[in-house]
Amino acid sequence: MRTHYCGHINASHIDQEVEICGWVHRRRDHGGVIFIDLRDREGLVQVVYDPDLPDIFAIAEQVRNEFVLKVRGRVRARPEGTVNPDMPTGEIEILGLGLEVLNRADTPPFQLDEHERVSEEVRLRYRYIDLRRPEMQKRIMLRAAVTRALRSYLDDNGFLDIETPMLTKATPEGARDYLVPSRTHPGHFFALPQSPQLFKQLLMMSGMDRYYQIVRCFRDEDLRADRQPEFTQLDIETSFMSENEIMNAMEEMIRGVVKQVLDVDLPDPFPHMTYQEAMRRFGSDRPDLRCPLELVDVADLMDGVDFKVFSGPAKDPKGRVAALCLPKGCELTRKEIDEYTKYVGIYGARGLAYIKVNDWSGQGRDGLQSPILKFLPDEAVNGIMERTGAQDGDLIFFGADKASVVNEALGALRVKLGEDRGLMQPGWHPVWVVDFPMFEWDEGADRWNALHHPFTAPKEDQLDLLESDPGACLSRAYDMVLNGTEVGGGSIRIHNSAVQERVFRLLGIGEEEAEEKFGFLLTALKYGCPPHGGLAFGLDRLVMLLAGAGSIRDVMAFPKTQTAACMLTAAPSEVSPAQLRELSIRVRTPKAEEQG
Amino acid sequence: MRTHYCGHINASHIDQEVEICGWVHRRRDHGGVIFIDLRDREGLVQVVYDPDLPDIFAIAEQVRNEFVLKVRGRVRARPEGTVNPDMPTGEIEILGLGLEVLNRADTPPFQLDEHERVSEEVRLRYRYIDLRRPEMQKRIMLRAAVTRALRSYLDDNGFLDIETPMLTKATPEGARDYLVPSRTHPGHFFALPQSPQLFKQLLMMSGMDRYYQIVRCFRDEDLRADRQPEFTQLDIETSFMSENEIMNAMEEMIRGVVKQVLDVDLPDPFPHMTYQEAMRRFGSDRPDLRCPLELVDVADLMDGVDFKVFSGPAKDPKGRVAALCLPKGCELTRKEIDEYTKYVGIYGARGLAYIKVNDWSGQGRDGLQSPILKFLPDEAVNGIMERTGAQDGDLIFFGADKASVVNEALGALRVKLGEDRGLMQPGWHPVWVVDFPMFEWDEGADRWNALHHPFTAPKEDQLDLLESDPGACLSRAYDMVLNGTEVGGGSIRIHNSAVQERVFRLLGIGEEEAEEKFGFLLTALKYGCPPHGGLAFGLDRLVMLLAGAGSIRDVMAFPKTQTAACMLTAAPSEVSPAQLRELSIRVRTPKAEEQG
Repeated sequence: MRTHYCGHINASHIDQEVEICGWVHRRRDHGGVIFIDLRDREGLVQVVYDPDLPDIFAIAEQVRNEFVLKVRGRVRARPEGTVNPDMPTGEIEILGLGLEVLNRADTPPFQLDEHERVSEEVRLRYRYIDLRRPEMQKRIMLRAAVTRALRSYLDDNGFLDIETPMLTKATPEGARDYLVPSRTHPGHFFALPQSPQLFKQLLMMSGMDRYYQIVRCFRDEDLRADRQPEFTQLDIETSFMSENEIMNAMEEMIRGVVKQVLDVDLPDPFPHMTYQEAMRRFGSDRPDLRCPLELVDVADLMDGVDFKVFSGPAKDPKGRVAALCLPKGCELTRKEIDEYTKYVGIYGARGLAYIKVNDWSGQGRDGLQSPILKFLPDEAVNGIMERTGAQDGDLIFFGADKASVVNEALGALRVKLGEDRGLMQPGWHPVWVVDFPMFEWDEGADRWNALHHPFTAPKEDQLDLLESDPGACLSRAYDMVLNGTEVGGGSIRIHNSAVQERVFRLLGIGEEEAEEKFGFLLTALKYGCPPHGGLAFGLDRLVMLLAGAGSIRDVMAFPKTQTAACMLTAAPSEVSPAQLRELSIRVRTPKAEEQG
Repeated sequence: MRTHYCGHINASHIDQEVEICGWVHRRRDHGGVIFIDLRDREGLVQVVYDPDLPDIFAIAEQVRNEFVLKVRGRVRARPEGTVNPDMPTGEIEILGLGLEVLNRADTPPFQLDEHERVSEEVRLRYRYIDLRRPEMQKRIMLRAAVTRALRSYLDDNGFLDIETPMLTKATPEGARDYLVPSRTHPGHFFALPQSPQLFKQLLMMSGMDRYYQIVRCFRDEDLRADRQPEFTQLDIETSFMSENEIMNAMEEMIRGVVKQVLDVDLPDPFPHMTYQEAMRRFGSDRPDLRCPLELVDVADLMDGVDFKVFSGPAKDPKGRVAALCLPKGCELTRKEIDEYTKYVGIYGARGLAYIKVNDWSGQGRDGLQSPILKFLPDEAVNGIMERTGAQDGDLIFFGADKASVVNEALGALRVKLGEDRGLMQPGWHPVWVVDFPMFEWDEGADRWNALHHPFTAPKEDQLDLLESDPGACLSRAYDMVLNGTEVGGGSIRIHNSAVQERVFRLLGIGEEEAEEKFGFLLTALKYGCPPHGGLAFGLDRLVMLLAGAGSIRDVMAFPKTQTAACMLTAAPSEVSPAQLRELSIRVRTPKAEEQG
């Protein structure tokens, strides 16, 4: 129906007759002539209708925004002074010789240029209009380009694209499952996968050697922050590869993708950082290396001071006292400091002590300014100044609490300060975080939790720690972090059924529960399981980062709201009693509930 | 961990030291030497351990089938007389210099070579062992190669890979939905998609222009024949393209894929055949063109005969009387004919009349043999002989009944005869079936049904027939048929809301129901919908055909049984009362049922 996309026409087509199809982006009448910007996926082009062709001109007069048109015309250079250098097609215009209205359009609920004036709810309800915005189209196209580049690398490197079931057994990831009632097995339910973790391990036991899948996963969680009930994972598993071989392949893949879609060179190789170092320097296991600020430990300087806020955590083996020096921080107003104090409060910090370095004498408190100075002996002050390397004009923040609180609070503060104070380095800063602990102690539940998942292998020389000192046992897990976001994570898996049983036991998964939930895995491990490992990337988040979008909703065609509803189709919805009867379930109404 | 795949080692590696990993396919002790066939995804290779290295030999003595090994060794030519020309690695063997048992294996529930001795149930329960069979691995690899080739064509031709939701609204395809209770909206349910039909149409309204997705679809049907509750579709939609442009692109894609994975050239172009011609000549809208047999209409010869079995259907406008000539059919025994009579009975035929052409005189009944000849005047006999072109030795079968019964019965019989009698042409015979009716009359429900789906556009010059003669109205649908299997089907869609409303009305979908189910589509059609169309391929079935497999289960990694259960993970399963309470549902037990 057309010879070109609108957005592809340029000066090389001058004097050619072209046919294009698209949407009316805007229409202007100017000097007795009608200008139509016609839009398709590839861009906009200006079409001009003049009254010399009265029949066609009459049609052109009737078109409105978002009408779908088929245009025939001749490409010509724009008259001098009307060239638009901001548009790829801005050197030319099309003199309209034919015009067909393929479809009319009612006045849309919002104009594309004015999407910011309407709520996100309206944009989601009329998603097909919102998606026509060039910005949204570019994001969806970028996503397709990213998946293509990922697949291309994996296909070229012997990874097999293999599909795993969606109707499956409740998965062990720990989040809440979406359930699907079975009609043929009354009272029984499938679960939608939280990830294909066990299936991909079974594929390694099946001898598939290298597997990948771009796969939908489901978690029925409360949608705090930027989450979606269904999301997409690039899921990967390999046999007979060490963690370093896997990490090298994966960063090669990501380097290739970023080069291809953004023409940016990522570092080669990516730096590696232990979990311990990441927590110590950045208070986070997904450090944003764009920010030059770092935490500095000062507990040893504080354990004797007469200031319990500091000395308490300094003496507590689970405590931490750390300093964060902000260059030129003396510029902060009292009000700004108060706001940062509130900000760290979100993360549980009960205050935010600081020292202003006005004009330090090089010794003791002279030239420093802070309500806490009176508590600190000169020795401690000198130590702080030396370790933070603070210069005149700087400000030093302090965190003192349980280590987890200090890490979360100062870890978040350093990134916020980096952003607020323009300290963030440009560009892309990937890092592999490695040597994670196997387990973390859950105070509330009074038991060990797997930091990654229960199938993650411990370091081979630390097997004994599984029983003797679980908290010290490190895992063979690795996370890829990009600009402070965890884009992927994985591990070498346990391939020995005895070790798997020991880990289950440590996690408080009894023999019966292990058999019921994971019996098929434990059995499979006994029939010739190769050493294997892999990882999964959060595709939505990766694309969001690369697209510079603010939310994963902006890189999904049809996202759901924060209450897990689809505004466009009005899902979920009620269904007929007959359908429920076939599935052997009934709705539990509050009324029936009251009646017991 | 390795330098090569087992299956890749050949004479070019002689004298090299290699490291390989894999499974013990079989182990033989022969002449004081141990032979191990080591297997990985890429094939088998023979490793030889001799007693010169006693430590290693001792390990080799302990390995059993399906142990996972790491082998170091030197490649050497096999001694003369022991070369195995049937194995790609059959010219060489590896002299083992190192051996590490990476994992042990219990005696597997079945040996790979003996999979045919165990039930499919056992093979599905231990799918990870069944999938190690080289035949299964080749199928899974072929599937990956097919999807890669499909994606590659689509990516190269401007189709965008876009994901659509899995948690969505009940879809209108007519089959039973899988439902997912919503936790955040008590009493409300998502449905898993039967296809992304409406979303892909909405993507066209979003200006995405060309879309594709390899996507899981769900139908909660009774699994007669070779169906699965979840299956995979290659889903495609385009804007501003005619049906011929779409068909040309799609056959180009399929030609490319078949060339790439099987090195076979499909015809260019594919032949087109109208629905009417397909039914007339082959009794089916998915004609298997490998079979040269064709149906021949003879109703006009029979409408006056004194044999109600023939004259009744001949005079009935909904009846059909057809002949099917089987070359050399006189060879059929009485018993064989009886079996074919039973066979057509499956399709509702109440008998299978026939004429044996023993030695025809060229006129009348002389030399023919049949119980029905006495009812047929010479004129009818001569007409039959002329139209079927029957030769001496042939046998002519007859079908006379409602057209639908004759078509089903003789349509199936011609393929069965073709297979039984060795008449099937070799190779691949694609055909586009076009010009389908829009609607078929549902006798039982006393209303019109959409032959494809309610969004299929009628021929542009037949819009008036929507009300005046719906049965005569043809659609802009097209099916791609390959060797008697429908591999893909699609249509140009309705892009005009008034036409869509007329079709809903004709299908008995009232205004209220249309608004509730499809309101968002009808609204979207009013805001600038481009002309669009597309199609969907059944990926499982396409791969099954290309792999020469007997069932779609053979080209899926983890299929379900005929009762929609997963033998491997034991899904579906019971869930905790707490989970159900969170979802505001309860199981309807038979006992509760009795109590009302």
